[in-house]
Amino acid sequence: MSKPVTPLLDTVDTPDDLRKLQPSQLRQLADELRDEMIATVGQTGGHLGSGLGVVELTTAIHYVFETPRDRLIWDVGHQAYPHKILTGRRSRMRTLRQGGGLSGFTKRSESEYDPFGTAHSSTSISAALGFAVANKLANQPGKAIAVIGDGAMSAGMAYEAMNNAAEAGNRLVVILNDNDMSIAPPVGGLSAYLARLVSSRPFLELREMFKAISRRLPEPLHKAARKTDEFARGMAMGGTLFEELGFYYVGPIDGHNLDQLIPVLENVRDAAEGPCLVHVVTQKGKGYAPAENAADKYHGVQKFDVITGEQAKSAAGPPSYTAVFAQALMAEAARDATICAITAAMPSGTGLDKFAKAYSERHFDVGIAEQHAVTFAAGLAAQGMRPFCAIYSTFLQRAYDQVVHDVAIQNLPVRFAIDRAGLVGADGATHAGSFDVTYLATLPNMVVMAAADEAELVHMVHTAAMHDSGPIAFRYPRGNGVGVPMPEVPERLEIGKGRVVREGSKVAILSLGTRLAEALKAADHLDAKGLSTTVADLRFVKPLDEALIRRLMASHDVIVTVEEGAIGGLGAHVLTMASDEGLTDAGLRIRTLRLPDVFQDQDAPDKQYDAAGLNAPQIVDTVLKALRHNSAGVQEARA
Amino acid sequence: MSKPVTPLLDTVDTPDDLRKLQPSQLRQLADELRDEMIATVGQTGGHLGSGLGVVELTTAIHYVFETPRDRLIWDVGHQAYPHKILTGRRSRMRTLRQGGGLSGFTKRSESEYDPFGTAHSSTSISAALGFAVANKLANQPGKAIAVIGDGAMSAGMAYEAMNNAAEAGNRLVVILNDNDMSIAPPVGGLSAYLARLVSSRPFLELREMFKAISRRLPEPLHKAARKTDEFARGMAMGGTLFEELGFYYVGPIDGHNLDQLIPVLENVRDAAEGPCLVHVVTQKGKGYAPAENAADKYHGVQKFDVITGEQAKSAAGPPSYTAVFAQALMAEAARDATICAITAAMPSGTGLDKFAKAYSERHFDVGIAEQHAVTFAAGLAAQGMRPFCAIYSTFLQRAYDQVVHDVAIQNLPVRFAIDRAGLVGADGATHAGSFDVTYLATLPNMVVMAAADEAELVHMVHTAAMHDSGPIAFRYPRGNGVGVPMPEVPERLEIGKGRVVREGSKVAILSLGTRLAEALKAADHLDAKGLSTTVADLRFVKPLDEALIRRLMASHDVIVTVEEGAIGGLGAHVLTMASDEGLTDAGLRIRTLRLPDVFQDQDAPDKQYDAAGLNAPQIVDTVLKALRHNSAGVQEARA
Repeated sequence: MSKPVTPLLDTVDTPDDLRKLQPSQLRQLADELRDEMIATVGQTGGHLGSGLGVVELTTAIHYVFETPRDRLIWDVGHQAYPHKILTGRRSRMRTLRQGGGLSGFTKRSESEYDPFGTAHSSTSISAALGFAVANKLANQPGKAIAVIGDGAMSAGMAYEAMNNAAEAGNRLVVILNDNDMSIAPPVGGLSAYLARLVSSRPFLELREMFKAISRRLPEPLHKAARKTDEFARGMAMGGTLFEELGFYYVGPIDGHNLDQLIPVLENVRDAAEGPCLVHVVTQKGKGYAPAENAADKYHGVQKFDVITGEQAKSAAGPPSYTAVFAQALMAEAARDATICAITAAMPSGTGLDKFAKAYSERHFDVGIAEQHAVTFAAGLAAQGMRPFCAIYSTFLQRAYDQVVHDVAIQNLPVRFAIDRAGLVGADGATHAGSFDVTYLATLPNMVVMAAADEAELVHMVHTAAMHDSGPIAFRYPRGNGVGVPMPEVPERLEIGKGRVVREGSKVAILSLGTRLAEALKAADHLDAKGLSTTVADLRFVKPLDEALIRRLMASHDVIVTVEEGAIGGLGAHVLTMASDEGLTDAGLRIRTLRLPDVFQDQDAPDKQYDAAGLNAPQIVDTVLKALRHNSAGVQEARA
Repeated sequence: MSKPVTPLLDTVDTPDDLRKLQPSQLRQLADELRDEMIATVGQTGGHLGSGLGVVELTTAIHYVFETPRDRLIWDVGHQAYPHKILTGRRSRMRTLRQGGGLSGFTKRSESEYDPFGTAHSSTSISAALGFAVANKLANQPGKAIAVIGDGAMSAGMAYEAMNNAAEAGNRLVVILNDNDMSIAPPVGGLSAYLARLVSSRPFLELREMFKAISRRLPEPLHKAARKTDEFARGMAMGGTLFEELGFYYVGPIDGHNLDQLIPVLENVRDAAEGPCLVHVVTQKGKGYAPAENAADKYHGVQKFDVITGEQAKSAAGPPSYTAVFAQALMAEAARDATICAITAAMPSGTGLDKFAKAYSERHFDVGIAEQHAVTFAAGLAAQGMRPFCAIYSTFLQRAYDQVVHDVAIQNLPVRFAIDRAGLVGADGATHAGSFDVTYLATLPNMVVMAAADEAELVHMVHTAAMHDSGPIAFRYPRGNGVGVPMPEVPERLEIGKGRVVREGSKVAILSLGTRLAEALKAADHLDAKGLSTTVADLRFVKPLDEALIRRLMASHDVIVTVEEGAIGGLGAHVLTMASDEGLTDAGLRIRTLRLPDVFQDQDAPDKQYDAAGLNAPQIVDTVLKALRHNSAGVQEARA
């Protein structure tokens, strides 16, 4: 597709340029910005619908506020593509989400216009409050603006922040971007409430607009206006949940109408009191018919044809781990009426949308509310249900205390299905599932498994379903399986038992999770060099298969552990067991391969694993180096 | 003090007995229950004020609902002493919070009347929802009642649960116990809102009571009542934040007036629609003058004289770690205007109440809102402040994702002051700080320190204050310091450098944190046995002092690490470093002492550490066993 024609946008490199335009020019600018964004994402893939919904809002905010001095924080940040285009990054937009390219979210290192990196939902009000209060303490100018979706408002963290918003006074502006849609349609009481609010009030009318604008009149008039109760209640209408929490509420206003947005934002900017919450109604996917018409509003897309909207197909191949999980869980649910499934606003991401269709009564989408999800599951388990909590590794961090306090301490049989474990490619560091093994395997009572391939995942779903004596977690990565034959009937794995995939005699690779394929490749290379190699798939990091590990340590010259997780996981548990038993006393040639001690930026997954040192050549290299290592060091040297 | 006279209470062992009484007898029962509770806690110490505030509520709930079939969940659970007395545990009340005795919270293993263990705040609605939904799915009778304080309502988790409450229909009852006081006075918009609500509405009047009772009239009248808008809006008054989230709101009602409580709860119990929220106003410390008159309403007390209310004094001794931290932070604040402090509703527990008096502008009590606390701190740091987040180890679990996503990934210099690290005595497993080293040290960019004594804590506060290049955490235990001389001027520690406290040649103990004293005792014993012992205080678990560890490994026969944390912490990091460098290849006699793989119940701290194997005799024993261990095992055996 040819580049869109964008004469006005071509003159705008930063918000300073934008602020030189006349208000009457902004409509054209927004239209060009939308065309540019569609063309860009057509080439790169990425998050489309959310950005399209905030083209006018992005334009208006930068026009009205003094960015970057005024701190603008986009909650989640996947709607920030138009923001990136307007803040000096237009020329790099075609590198989005690629190795070395722009992040798909906001990122401090990318631009001074990104004061706070986002990616996980619902952090923006807390962060904005931090900026606002710091300015207040330093007695320096500068507001903070958080733009947050209605879905993100369902997270407890957003509520905690709103409850503290008064700290910031009029330096804090929260813009509620209400599109009745986060990734999936939002759920719960708040969502119903917002819908009632919007349906029961007309968009701000001209009369209200004039009132809102009155704040900007010359001082005497302004003073008079100040005294009115109207002003004290905010600028337009009142009586909302947000006001009960201490905000001045303005809205709802049409988020695609610049003639509404600009004066209201100017008024909020100049308000003597605060904090203000501006309720803006937008349409996800706005202005691009294929997106407007799609059920998910083109939330996350592949590259696509701009004219037809047709997305590039992924090459056919083995099913995704997500799909395998969902299929396996439905099989368990068919067998057992106590099986139920919980997602925190990710029904399609976790594959539970299929489960929801088949077993709607036993499917719970709790909204962006991981904390509640886990303790709700604990309650279900305590009353005899068999709940599966399907939460991405990185998002389960949100519920860590609930995993510890409500599940592990009480030894309740909650099943954790941990998708997106390990590195995740284009989403980068914020979405990597690097820490779950470490933070879960340290907990008493917890069983922790990792699937080496999609067939193993089926076994683990079944094993978890049958495990009633306490909590159990199983992790599996983003992306497609490796194409192994699928079992007709799932196997119930023995808790704490691994399997030897290939027997050798000199080198033993202890693998946890889907690095198994690389471990097997490495074993081929080593065998070819005359180093007979055993490969074990441990399946469990907790409890460890101590008998197997003991045997392999006693019978092999070099032991290497491999895992897709940070320090503190498999390697640490194997080493701890070995030292507990004195297996290192007389010499143990052991190396632990794990994720490096850095947050890795987005890239193709294979490249990420290469950078992490977790592919076959690096496993081979580690073994060879270990064999060459001069063993006459350390304590022996003293003898 | 003599046992109180409790003729009616003596006839009540369980709620079944209670439900045989006439309504007119309940006042006397509540009075006796209150006397009994005061007498008990006078002997044991514990949480007093909260329990006194809910004597009538406890009585009324068990009288009206069919416990244990109806599931009653006390949020936090420290107000559940009257509940314990009424549910078969009266005779064991004098073992409260002691080793082998009753827990200070609710606990599943203690009683069928404790369907869900609590201790951390704000979990009750989520758990109750789980019970209610499980009953709904099983199509079996049974409601779930969550009793939650106004302070606990400020936590995001409670909001997430309320947002999902509609799932449960009329099976869920939430009782908001509004005493305008959690541990400290609550903060924020919600608190202000509740105060307005209570002050703007009279307690339910007789007229309203009749309306509420009308539901219990014979069917024809009942049907007529059903149709009124009044009923549709709940049973009494409407228009609250809770209704906006989908609840039927009833209240406020006087939580000490049984004539109000009983009919309202009966009505809520029989309501055809739901979920219901009953807003009950109580007074913390009610009915015991010394508690009513104390600023903290006797939240947590030592043993006390029932007549005078005078609490037993702790023996004079070194200052508590908490006090040392607060003092040190105030010294930093005096020097540096960017230092600020954040607590999540624990100003006195963290010592920040003193800081708040001296530097009120730079002190932030955000309520029970750890998630917000951490990201707010990240925002402050991003705008140039130097924030200290003072959060107990166990509560920082609530903000793990914020530590990872908002602080560590962005490498923002937030300082984490982690009190109550390690075992905590009477509060038991739910409050133990066992996992922080594991879950923090696995994160890139994070610096993690542990103070070996109170002087070290002063140095670490200063080191953290001066550390602007990224996040830094320091942990310290519950209780008093060891009595070392305090530094006149704090020292800035070199990041990642430990110190050798005592030089030996044969055994090296690597200590992290306050087990140092036991390590030194162990060294004395070992020296006396001719085993010259080095003791190092590593100070940092991340980054490790690799040079020091390497040197000690090369020059000693046995290495033992000691820490007050679970697997994945110091021991794991030392072992990982050693195996990375091939230091185990030729033999490394190393053992790692850590918390065991169980959740330890409450006991005296020294006994807990004994059970954990972390006292001097066990360190000695570990060394001796390691020296005796037959080193001809494992890989050597193959040669």
